[in-house]
Amino acid sequence: MGIVVQKFGGTSVGSVERIQRVADTVAKTKASGHQVVVVVSAMGKSTDELVELAYQINDDPSPREMDMLLTTGEQVSIALLTMALNAKGLPARSMTGWQAGIRTNRIHGKAMVQYVDTKPIMQCLERGEIVVVAGFQGISPDGEITTLGRGGSDTSAVTLAAALQADYCEIYTDVTGVYTADPRVVPNAQKMDEISYEEMLELAHLGAGVLHPRSVESALLHQVQLVVRSSFVDEPGTWVKEADAMETALNVRGIAHDLNVARIKVLGLPNREDTLARLFGCLADAHINVDMIVQSEHDSKHVDVAFSVDEAEGKEAKKVLEEAKEELGYVKILSESGLAKVSAVGVGMMTRPGVAAKMFATLSEAGIRIKMVSTSEIKISCVVDRESALDAVRKLHTAFGLDVKELAEATHS
Amino acid sequence: MGIVVQKFGGTSVGSVERIQRVADTVAKTKASGHQVVVVVSAMGKSTDELVELAYQINDDPSPREMDMLLTTGEQVSIALLTMALNAKGLPARSMTGWQAGIRTNRIHGKAMVQYVDTKPIMQCLERGEIVVVAGFQGISPDGEITTLGRGGSDTSAVTLAAALQADYCEIYTDVTGVYTADPRVVPNAQKMDEISYEEMLELAHLGAGVLHPRSVESALLHQVQLVVRSSFVDEPGTWVKEADAMETALNVRGIAHDLNVARIKVLGLPNREDTLARLFGCLADAHINVDMIVQSEHDSKHVDVAFSVDEAEGKEAKKVLEEAKEELGYVKILSESGLAKVSAVGVGMMTRPGVAAKMFATLSEAGIRIKMVSTSEIKISCVVDRESALDAVRKLHTAFGLDVKELAEATHS
Repeated sequence: MGIVVQKFGGTSVGSVERIQRVADTVAKTKASGHQVVVVVSAMGKSTDELVELAYQINDDPSPREMDMLLTTGEQVSIALLTMALNAKGLPARSMTGWQAGIRTNRIHGKAMVQYVDTKPIMQCLERGEIVVVAGFQGISPDGEITTLGRGGSDTSAVTLAAALQADYCEIYTDVTGVYTADPRVVPNAQKMDEISYEEMLELAHLGAGVLHPRSVESALLHQVQLVVRSSFVDEPGTWVKEADAMETALNVRGIAHDLNVARIKVLGLPNREDTLARLFGCLADAHINVDMIVQSEHDSKHVDVAFSVDEAEGKEAKKVLEEAKEELGYVKILSESGLAKVSAVGVGMMTRPGVAAKMFATLSEAGIRIKMVSTSEIKISCVVDRESALDAVRKLHTAFGLDVKELAEATHS
Repeated sequence: MGIVVQKFGGTSVGSVERIQRVADTVAKTKASGHQVVVVVSAMGKSTDELVELAYQINDDPSPREMDMLLTTGEQVSIALLTMALNAKGLPARSMTGWQAGIRTNRIHGKAMVQYVDTKPIMQCLERGEIVVVAGFQGISPDGEITTLGRGGSDTSAVTLAAALQADYCEIYTDVTGVYTADPRVVPNAQKMDEISYEEMLELAHLGAGVLHPRSVESALLHQVQLVVRSSFVDEPGTWVKEADAMETALNVRGIAHDLNVARIKVLGLPNREDTLARLFGCLADAHINVDMIVQSEHDSKHVDVAFSVDEAEGKEAKKVLEEAKEELGYVKILSESGLAKVSAVGVGMMTRPGVAAKMFATLSEAGIRIKMVSTSEIKISCVVDRESALDAVRKLHTAFGLDVKELAEATHS
């Protein structure tokens, strides 16, 4: 048997008792004959507490010093988990990002992993030790401590799994797997046994919140099999893997939603080939991430462009475009917040006729107005009013046949 | 003007406000034209909290993992202080022990500094930056994070001052300097303007608690001038330097005390040349630090040996010797706890006749029984009952003319 990478998030190591439960899980995997590399995040809310301290001292702390500060959180976790493993008589060794050979570029606060020097970890594994690595961190070519950004421990785990050619990478979290919709919204949402990277990627981006999108991209790129499972309940999770290897239903697999959406319409832009480039260039320069984009031709001289952004960036996006009004030459800007995005996701669904039609009909029957539509190979997203969004999720979940019927009946009989 | 090293302990960086006050102090030194290297400890009680967490998880945590855990405390402090300096518009850069080139041996938990690669710090200083270094930590030849043991931040500061050929090293603490006796015990104790390394060393070992003995030894070895001063009150502190450079009064300079002393008497040991070596060899093997030793010849065949140890080690010391009874061949062991040690310290005082006589007479007049005596070139120590100890300190302070007379009068007039 080969190497398994197991990643435990902040909630999973949030207390002494939970750290001991993580040690039990790791011990079981080790006892099954695997070589185990564990990646952990900072305990519970400790990162948030450090961030708060920093902002009390400096309202614009340098990213380098933030990395210096925040990486201590994971360092505490690795030491404590290693002590817990040692207390069970298991040889184990903690490693910071730099000790584990995780080399990144120089961008503090959101560094990219450039390569992993696997020698230090491999030496420990060969000695029979469990290796406990601090997630979320690495070292730059100048010997500076860097972080991979929020949610970066998932990326650390996947990157290590790829570099170590692990059999698979388990992501332990506070949910039991990936669901066909958010179970808090759709009570009879089903846990999926498996899902393709591409579907997971859409769900991750759409705010399913189980896996960090970067980690899924990295898993796809390096073909690392992921398992999302619970650190509190011992049941099989959801495997994330190549679509070819799956029995794909070629249908809608899940309904995702994002409740924080703002829309901005730019009316009366000059109808020129560089219009879009200049418009979105402005936004990119201001580091604003644009999500959906819709362009409509007004007449031969003018076009209108609408796009959605994260609600937190709506005001800034509007301000940036207002400052560039002269340069962009538009007539008017309208912005609207309080919106949401609801998406149906499934590999191959776009090749099945009628999926989009069924989505629009379902929302229409529920009296929900669609404000924007965007489609890709594996998803259809609709922007709707925030108040209607959760109703839309439930209606679509039922319409696409995702509700757990047998299980619900079994439970009631 | 050259380099100044400033060390701030845990109390001095115990809160956001205190960190900002430290930044003010550092800024002032920088503004005076010095190049500044700051060494900081972990915030307030954060190290104790981490230790407690560790022992909840493992009652015998490995020293390597303890070092991994505890070094995070100083890493938090350096990041926050650097942010505070940046907030004042000062260029500054934090460095962990390994980034600052502090190379130690491999002994986790109490590593010794072997050398300092000063290049990283010097490069920053030359760019005009303030360098903020994590105290108490270094890196072993294997790339392992090590700690210098409790109180080790003082040692970090002195070692850096020596390696960087600093003009002097300021130790900021919660007292305003070194006093002729503990001001809580002797209200009219005086702050000394200067004190020799040797005197400070005796005072440090005797529990004056202001400076870690190792840091004083290191300062003496490398001839680093130290200043002990307050991080809360802006007044000149006490300089610790070469006795030759001082106007030495050749008299008693201070009265120190240690309230946690146990005495063990070993009676009827064989009078042989290897008796002491074997007796104290046993204790050394058990890592028990012996302080004062008195040997008395009983008759030609037997000797009695009495020694003092820290009260916390009294029981263990007795147990070790009882287990070695057969090997050592003594008749009987007696142990007594609840004792204290009172010492008069001063360079050259032993060359002045009558110092010891005055000490014994003062204690005798106060009705205090002396249980053990030990002398060195620069101190006389007496073991007495704990209840009498503070009275003894006050009486000796007065007898050796150390009370602040003029100041007391000035205050009352």
